[in-house]
Amino acid sequence: MSPQFHDLVGYPAAFLTTVAFIPQAWQSWRTRDLSGISLPMYALFTLGVALWMIYGLLIDSLPVFVANIITLGLSSLVLALKIQQALRSR
Amino acid sequence: MSPQFHDLVGYPAAFLTTVAFIPQAWQSWRTRDLSGISLPMYALFTLGVALWMIYGLLIDSLPVFVANIITLGLSSLVLALKIQQALRSR
Repeated sequence: MSPQFHDLVGYPAAFLTTVAFIPQAWQSWRTRDLSGISLPMYALFTLGVALWMIYGLLIDSLPVFVANIITLGLSSLVLALKIQQALRSR
Repeated sequence: MSPQFHDLVGYPAAFLTTVAFIPQAWQSWRTRDLSGISLPMYALFTLGVALWMIYGLLIDSLPVFVANIITLGLSSLVLALKIQQALRSR
C-alpha cells in the first residue's frame, strides 16, 4: 500500500488533535486551575476516545489505536483533576 | 455496504467526541471563564480538526466531514474566546 495524497493531510490531522492535549494536561496538572474546563465535555470526550481506541483494535488500525490511547491518557488526567476540583468545591 | 460490527463502536465514538465540545463551548461562552483552558491546546486542536475536515472531503467521507465541521465551529469559538481573554489580560 503506497502512501496517498490524502495521507499527507490525515497524518498531520491525527498528530495535531492528539498532541493538542499535551499542553492542556500539563497546564491543568501544573496549575490545578480547572475552573474554565467543562466536566461534561471531558466526561463525554474521554468515553468517546475510549470507544475510538476500541474501534482502532476492531479495524486493526495501529494509527487509530495509538493516537487514541495517548489522547485517552491525557484526557483522563484532565477529567480526573476536574472531578477532584468539583468534589472539593461542593 | 451493510453495517459492520465495528460501526457500532465507531459511530458512537464519533458522536461522543463531537458533541463533547457543545458543553465546553456553551460554558466558555456563558461564563467567559477561560482561565483553565490551554491556548496552545485549542490552537493545535482547531488546526488539526480543520485538516480532518479537509481529509473527509479528500476521502469522500460525509461522516468525517460533518463531524469535523461541527467540532471546528465549536473549538474555534473556544479558541476565539481564549485569545480575547489572553489579549485582555496582557
